[in-house]
Amino acid sequence: MLIALFPGDGIGPEIVAQAKRVLDALAIDGVTYEEGLVGGSAYKAVGHPLPPETLDIAKRADAILFGAVGDPDCDSLERHLRPEQAILGLRKELGLFSNLRPAKVFPELAHESALKPEVAGSIDLLIVRETNGDVYFGEKGMRTTVDGLREGYDIMSYNEAEVRRIAHAGFQAARARRGKLCSVDKANVLETSQLWRDVVIEVSAEYSDVALTHMYVDNAAMQLVRNPGQFDVIVTGNMFGDILSDQASMCVGSIGMLASATLNGSGQGLYEPIHGSAPDIAGQGKANPLATILSAAMMLRYSLNLPEPADRIEAAVAKALADGARSPDLGGTMNTIEMGDAVLAAL
Amino acid sequence: MLIALFPGDGIGPEIVAQAKRVLDALAIDGVTYEEGLVGGSAYKAVGHPLPPETLDIAKRADAILFGAVGDPDCDSLERHLRPEQAILGLRKELGLFSNLRPAKVFPELAHESALKPEVAGSIDLLIVRETNGDVYFGEKGMRTTVDGLREGYDIMSYNEAEVRRIAHAGFQAARARRGKLCSVDKANVLETSQLWRDVVIEVSAEYSDVALTHMYVDNAAMQLVRNPGQFDVIVTGNMFGDILSDQASMCVGSIGMLASATLNGSGQGLYEPIHGSAPDIAGQGKANPLATILSAAMMLRYSLNLPEPADRIEAAVAKALADGARSPDLGGTMNTIEMGDAVLAAL
Ligand SMILES: CC(C)[C@H](C(=O)O)[C@@H](O)C(=O)O
Ligand SMILES: CC(C)[C@H](C(=O)O)[C@@H](O)C(=O)O
Repeated sequence: MLIALFPGDGIGPEIVAQAKRVLDALAIDGVTYEEGLVGGSAYKAVGHPLPPETLDIAKRADAILFGAVGDPDCDSLERHLRPEQAILGLRKELGLFSNLRPAKVFPELAHESALKPEVAGSIDLLIVRETNGDVYFGEKGMRTTVDGLREGYDIMSYNEAEVRRIAHAGFQAARARRGKLCSVDKANVLETSQLWRDVVIEVSAEYSDVALTHMYVDNAAMQLVRNPGQFDVIVTGNMFGDILSDQASMCVGSIGMLASATLNGSGQGLYEPIHGSAPDIAGQGKANPLATILSAAMMLRYSLNLPEPADRIEAAVAKALADGARSPDLGGTMNTIEMGDAVLAAL
Repeated sequence: MLIALFPGDGIGPEIVAQAKRVLDALAIDGVTYEEGLVGGSAYKAVGHPLPPETLDIAKRADAILFGAVGDPDCDSLERHLRPEQAILGLRKELGLFSNLRPAKVFPELAHESALKPEVAGSIDLLIVRETNGDVYFGEKGMRTTVDGLREGYDIMSYNEAEVRRIAHAGFQAARARRGKLCSVDKANVLETSQLWRDVVIEVSAEYSDVALTHMYVDNAAMQLVRNPGQFDVIVTGNMFGDILSDQASMCVGSIGMLASATLNGSGQGLYEPIHGSAPDIAGQGKANPLATILSAAMMLRYSLNLPEPADRIEAAVAKALADGARSPDLGGTMNTIEMGDAVLAAL
């Protein structure tokens, strides 16, 4: 089994290194690793955020462990050369359409949330975000209006096949959890959302055991603050999912703790922390590696079919927290390596 | 001076009636009122959510006091006949492009928020949302792909003139407040956002006294939970503004308290509570009329140039709250009329 390691920019290399230590400690038979350049660091080294060599590793790999991309030095590059194109390109080229973002509070950290502890403590939800379509991947560009004005445009769209496969992912996830699926759209304004809603309703016929509701995205953003405990699984498009999943992750109080998986139809997956490259603290040992370590656990479970070591990692993270391991984002003083040490000690 | 009263659907008539009582009590010279049908109730009465008679009143009026639109009975109508088209149509036909949504906690209500009281109490922000463009008003429809699949699409776009005028609105609002403007976009993915960011930066040359920052929308959704006190004025497009302003309003804890104004270039404005038509409690006297009463105050200030009675209304609402007036959404038992009575008593 081949695991691609793509550390990326900013704090990426520091946090992926700790996840690798944890994977090494598990001494899993038959796993090999290949490292690749992505993001701004890839651009700086070889002139492209997703070089062909990296894409080749990704395609051959069973799973990708991804750090983060994003580098302020690259903000004024042409769009296709910016660091973000690495993650967008991997999602698209590998057909990684189903982005799973669980949000659940660790009891020891409930007080870190800006939400009241009882509200934060009620959160146990999963956002299933589509990541191959929507306004992210439609035709886009700059043009000039008939009046000679500069205009930027991006086409939002979904077809029924794209909605159907992510709807199935949402219903299946709900079935494996508490049986509740909330589909989020803006069908009162957008035709893309109307098609989304129509198809989700069609697919629901195959899941009579799942309770389906619909919510407008503005209301969903309110409900995630007011009463996030009401949600089990949320399924939504790429753009709304980007916003709502980051909001939900912050409700949990510790974005440095949240892992994610992005899967295609054949079990391949990309695993990454929800947080970004945090260039402001890069190289200082301040980054919390737990989200990346937990992403490695998701990887073992979903792409490598190794639930047992996945459970072990998750238990070790919980124990490290219970034993008091705290990086600066969690109100503590432990550095990135010490956080890794704490997880290894708990393993 | 002509004020258009458009109560609309659901709880709309109940809450507008209380705002009208407050306006009547102020006995402002030279104000006349005309009432019009909007939304699902207009559709049911005359077959269109924004009948020509209503649009005619709106165009002649100095200001519109709007209740709410939205009616589940109308969900399966063709899009152009749905209740929401009333508000979208008024914004577009009257060129109401600058939607101002202040969010600030009433000290007595800070504990109502799902956020910790110290976080909720730190909120004092204004969202300036563009409401004439973006993916709301671009070409949209259903089409069939080359593979014969149903596809929904909506074109997102902004031209430089549209961005420039809302940027000016944002900078001016910031200048009148604490001098901080945060422009929210998704320039790392969207060309529409790239144009937005470019133009906001151009306009900033005229406002050297305002500190401009930029934030991606996903990060903004996080920061509104993590540390909403960091924001003064946020300026953003129609779609992102829809989501973020509802999120911000819920952070304050009492969506039944929040007013809004939507202005065009000539001082005309539409004033409405941020909450919707709440069909589930319509006709039961449970609705909180304070957001509508506060919208009437904004109307006096911004469109009728009557700051003094506006101040009086706002002071009366604050006093009513301090005296213990609480509708069910605020944890109390007072009905809609009793809430109106409380404000009138405080006036
Ligand atoms: C980096 C960016 C392009 C990306 C996205 O918007 O999808 C990120 O915000 C995410 O959510 O993974
Ligand atoms: C009713 C709906 C069309 C409207 C919008 O999306 O603009 C509403 O949510 C609002 O924010 O005023």
